[in-house]
Amino acid sequence: MSKTALRPPRGMRDFYPDDFRRRAWLFDHFRTVGQSFAFEEVDAPMLEHAELFTRKAGEEIVDQLYHFELHDRHLALRPEMTPSIARMVIAQAGSLRMPVRWFTVTQNWRYERMTRGRKREHFQWNMDVWGEPSVTAEAELIAAIFSLLDQVGLPRGEVKIRINSRALLEETLRKGVLAQRPEAFAPLCVVIDKLDKIGADAVIDQLTDSEGAVGLDETSAREVVGLLQLRDLDEAARHAPAGSHAFEELKRLFSLLEAYGVREDVIFDASVVRGLAYYTGIVFEAFDAAGTLRAICGGGRYDNLAQTLGGKPIPAVGFGFGDVVLGELLSDKGLWPELPRCVDDLIFPFGESEREAAIQIATRLRGQGRRVELILDSPKLKRAMIDANRIGAQRIWMLGPDEISRGHAKVRELATGKESEEPINPD
Amino acid sequence: MSKTALRPPRGMRDFYPDDFRRRAWLFDHFRTVGQSFAFEEVDAPMLEHAELFTRKAGEEIVDQLYHFELHDRHLALRPEMTPSIARMVIAQAGSLRMPVRWFTVTQNWRYERMTRGRKREHFQWNMDVWGEPSVTAEAELIAAIFSLLDQVGLPRGEVKIRINSRALLEETLRKGVLAQRPEAFAPLCVVIDKLDKIGADAVIDQLTDSEGAVGLDETSAREVVGLLQLRDLDEAARHAPAGSHAFEELKRLFSLLEAYGVREDVIFDASVVRGLAYYTGIVFEAFDAAGTLRAICGGGRYDNLAQTLGGKPIPAVGFGFGDVVLGELLSDKGLWPELPRCVDDLIFPFGESEREAAIQIATRLRGQGRRVELILDSPKLKRAMIDANRIGAQRIWMLGPDEISRGHAKVRELATGKESEEPINPD
Repeated sequence: MSKTALRPPRGMRDFYPDDFRRRAWLFDHFRTVGQSFAFEEVDAPMLEHAELFTRKAGEEIVDQLYHFELHDRHLALRPEMTPSIARMVIAQAGSLRMPVRWFTVTQNWRYERMTRGRKREHFQWNMDVWGEPSVTAEAELIAAIFSLLDQVGLPRGEVKIRINSRALLEETLRKGVLAQRPEAFAPLCVVIDKLDKIGADAVIDQLTDSEGAVGLDETSAREVVGLLQLRDLDEAARHAPAGSHAFEELKRLFSLLEAYGVREDVIFDASVVRGLAYYTGIVFEAFDAAGTLRAICGGGRYDNLAQTLGGKPIPAVGFGFGDVVLGELLSDKGLWPELPRCVDDLIFPFGESEREAAIQIATRLRGQGRRVELILDSPKLKRAMIDANRIGAQRIWMLGPDEISRGHAKVRELATGKESEEPINPD
Repeated sequence: MSKTALRPPRGMRDFYPDDFRRRAWLFDHFRTVGQSFAFEEVDAPMLEHAELFTRKAGEEIVDQLYHFELHDRHLALRPEMTPSIARMVIAQAGSLRMPVRWFTVTQNWRYERMTRGRKREHFQWNMDVWGEPSVTAEAELIAAIFSLLDQVGLPRGEVKIRINSRALLEETLRKGVLAQRPEAFAPLCVVIDKLDKIGADAVIDQLTDSEGAVGLDETSAREVVGLLQLRDLDEAARHAPAGSHAFEELKRLFSLLEAYGVREDVIFDASVVRGLAYYTGIVFEAFDAAGTLRAICGGGRYDNLAQTLGGKPIPAVGFGFGDVVLGELLSDKGLWPELPRCVDDLIFPFGESEREAAIQIATRLRGQGRRVELILDSPKLKRAMIDANRIGAQRIWMLGPDEISRGHAKVRELATGKESEEPINPD
């Protein structure tokens, strides 16, 4: 066996007990919030037909697909949940009660260079609403994100959500630089999403690339980048067509978020477009207020995806919320709780003659729902006591020949040192 | 999008809400039992270096590996957890408190022909003990399996566990047909494991194949197959060398299982060897008493695996328990519980003027830990009532203009039809 094979593949994680307890704690919160919003949990295969993910819009996520040919099939590890969810909704659209409210807690895969907050796998909490065209759905989802942040103990203000509308940008561009070429809108979004990462000049280069899918002239490209600087909703309205539906929806969303009590933590930001080609309407992303980490979560409306995949049109909106960036923020803020191992009873038979009684006690206590470690060999008392303290047991049951002869075990409460005798068979 | 890509890949499952609730119910039981035995949950990457799994002993599991070259790495979807667990134990053997008691609930992958109870992925509950050489560890694991069966409501007697010892077989063969060729023992086990599936003649053919790894003469091969017929422990002892350690351990295991109260549901069966090459000692498998399904779970001792993988020797024993066969048994017996969707409150604003109040109520109730569905559009009362019944809501909160003007909502208990008025803002 090579040394390499004895390590996890690069960018992937082992979860030892301490790591696992943190993961379980976080997943519990994801699920509690999903359930408190009356969403139902679902799952789809980790491995899908690659075709489900290979859109041709130049997205980073498609370049980073873990995909391979196997037994004449082209398969891929899912890089995101939305296409699988779409597939499941399409397959049962006739019988599902709309709106469908589903959430998932799943592992996703991307082959990419590793930087802080990014590995080659991560776990992601998704919530999606299918069948509801109005921003009441966006408002529920954004409220759920804040509910999760509250649950994990992040004080309000530490995380903000930036909100924009691709529909508003599209309406604005359609009366201007994209008037003749509406089909260039989705690839344009994929390019301008990189603004923060590659800067305005590189974005303009890509928007004006005559070989690219967008192909603007330089003046138009600069105008597009200019629009992204807007941070004031009313000013954005002035660039949009009169009576803009997208603007009305955006305004309504902010007013709904006021009712949810989260208005102070959401911001209009015209530069938010998100990197996925399928978004059509509201888009949003959560980020740490200090701005030192990657986006904590992101989402948006994708009303055309069902149709693109061959189903009937169904409006939809959702978000994905990863475990890695949030975990780093909790670490930076010192907000991970202590999550000690929980053992109620440690059962210690002094020797093999006491093992039968030890097994009977362990079986009885486990039947009562207690978490019981049975010592499997016959250590010295001293090692058993060290073990009891190390695993944080509440009680140690000591079974020596004297105790057995009286039908009892000696029980010590670890916290107080108090000792008592308990019958081996209380009936 | 092709029709194919809109279905899960063959042998893999979508989990719609009803399916997911069953899965979650089963996983909860796996975890409850794991914790009640004071085992700690861990996880490793779904994707590992293929080398970790590609043993050269002719095992079916290696032939069925989902493996592929990607970015110059030879990777594989894990077909089983044991090698990953071994890798993790080896990496931290110096700092882990032995015995290590770990469990996992993970998805594993095998590319194979699909028959009843076998898909290309399944979820598996594993429990492993590392660092304990005595059968006290086997006894704990077998007791945990019965504890799970109890928890899911299978009456004692519906599932039996067959137990054997490869060490006993090895001792017996070493004084006889394998006296000169001890290295043939592991491949011999891989062959004789197929007895039920391919029959005695085919097993003898493979054992006597001069190109194969075993290469017995026919008399010896028939003697081996003869040994597998034994069902009586004392008779097995007569074939073993005098003072056989393996026999003593097997006897001790049965006596420990008596103390656990499961002696009536375990059987000595010399034909059980399990298909994995790495087992060295006790092996066992659970099966339905009617004998109509594949093995429900299987496990055994694998004291040499750590060393084989390049670590220091550490004795170890564990089992894997899949979700598919148990699920079929529960279906056959009608033992799956009703697992209805749980929603506490449905909030129904008659129109958009009542939405703000509806949001406030939903937010408050969710803050109290209730599971609350907020209606996102403005349906007729009739549809809202149908919805409330369909999702099994306990209460529906009705918010019309009259109620709002009085600062109240009308609340109906679905089970009784009882109605009351509740303040929108109780403070």
